[in-house]
Amino acid sequence: MTAPVEPRVLKHQVVRAQLDRMLDNMQVGDPFPAEREIAETYDVARETVRQALRELLLAGRVERRGRTTVVARPKIQQPLAMGSYTEAVKSQGLSAGRILVGWTDQVADEPLAATLSVAVGAPIIQLERVLTTDGVRVGLETTRLPADRYPGLARTFDYRDSLYAEIRSRGIAFERTVDSIETALPDARESALLTVDTRTPMFLLNRVSYDQNGIPIEQRRSLYRGDRMTFTAIMHADQHPSM
Amino acid sequence: MTAPVEPRVLKHQVVRAQLDRMLDNMQVGDPFPAEREIAETYDVARETVRQALRELLLAGRVERRGRTTVVARPKIQQPLAMGSYTEAVKSQGLSAGRILVGWTDQVADEPLAATLSVAVGAPIIQLERVLTTDGVRVGLETTRLPADRYPGLARTFDYRDSLYAEIRSRGIAFERTVDSIETALPDARESALLTVDTRTPMFLLNRVSYDQNGIPIEQRRSLYRGDRMTFTAIMHADQHPSM
Repeated sequence: MTAPVEPRVLKHQVVRAQLDRMLDNMQVGDPFPAEREIAETYDVARETVRQALRELLLAGRVERRGRTTVVARPKIQQPLAMGSYTEAVKSQGLSAGRILVGWTDQVADEPLAATLSVAVGAPIIQLERVLTTDGVRVGLETTRLPADRYPGLARTFDYRDSLYAEIRSRGIAFERTVDSIETALPDARESALLTVDTRTPMFLLNRVSYDQNGIPIEQRRSLYRGDRMTFTAIMHADQHPSM
Repeated sequence: MTAPVEPRVLKHQVVRAQLDRMLDNMQVGDPFPAEREIAETYDVARETVRQALRELLLAGRVERRGRTTVVARPKIQQPLAMGSYTEAVKSQGLSAGRILVGWTDQVADEPLAATLSVAVGAPIIQLERVLTTDGVRVGLETTRLPADRYPGLARTFDYRDSLYAEIRSRGIAFERTVDSIETALPDARESALLTVDTRTPMFLLNRVSYDQNGIPIEQRRSLYRGDRMTFTAIMHADQHPSM
């Protein structure tokens, strides 16, 4: 059952493991040794080092600051929960921000109408925002709301704030959420908006939230940087049936 | 806020979107048109088509069968739950299998000892298995158990069965699980064991399970193919605090 490994691959994995161990003993923000230096230390080709470094970048263990590579901050822990992104980030003592990418009026096509329980052609508000944590772009969130349910949203809602808080302030309670979680690679636009390499594995969350009467509140697509985010979930036996 | 896009990138995205639409109207197992044919249809370079196809492969929308590319089966839906992989797969009418990669006796190092609440140097059973669904390799699971708690495991346990079922049969109940979910790229060995391209985004789950007395049962690392697996989670407001 052992997979065949070529010497080149093996060498690169050995270097990677040694760099991982080295990183465990370094501090956030510490400059990472230069490619050439690592190649000399381990007596391997520059290309072998380059591959290990690329992996460390995509894994979020190191990050680029201009021309230097430094030890990255730990990933943000986000509980997989009904609450908003803002609440999760703030509970860790970090600052949550949002950058507006698009606020458009649309009409519901057939699949969206079915998801949101509205008529085909019903007016939809689509809100697209980049989510930031301590100033770092970590996610891209696209929310679709049935416009008739949120009159005057453009006047009352500041896009820099939590949309969930705004919805709750209108007397709507989040009673149930249905999430699917996939992995994805960002397309060119998404990678530009999130300042990541297109080879960075991402989380793709699709959510539909329902209120106390079972009526859909929103349909949401969230793309999170896998190199910056870890989801956590704590489950108990007595809640097994609901998960 | 619009990201700068080069004509080449745009063209590739247009082709990708058209192929996505085409796939929506095809059946599982249908052969996908040849690269050359697609290039002619959309009047684009072969390299543009190749990039779009590579994306579709990594996303699990198409798969290779020998020299042909066919429409892939839908991803497996796995509820994010305390239950085992087997239970999730069987509930969808699919068959779950396991291939033993390694069964080794180890001793607990400091971090593992802390995680499993055993002494440093305590005997540990490490079980590594490839998980299959309907014969397709979808995951690689590494479980570490305190050996003293599971005497005679090598005699009583058939590695092709559910380990959770075996543990439960010994009177141990799964009371609480703590999961972290990350994205990752497979290394050379992992990609060979799971027969995937090393650029395929993967889910990396780390779990610690606890019994009815709060004693750790197992520490588990599961690597799941992102092109074959979707996690689902349904949450209710009254269970919010536990998530």
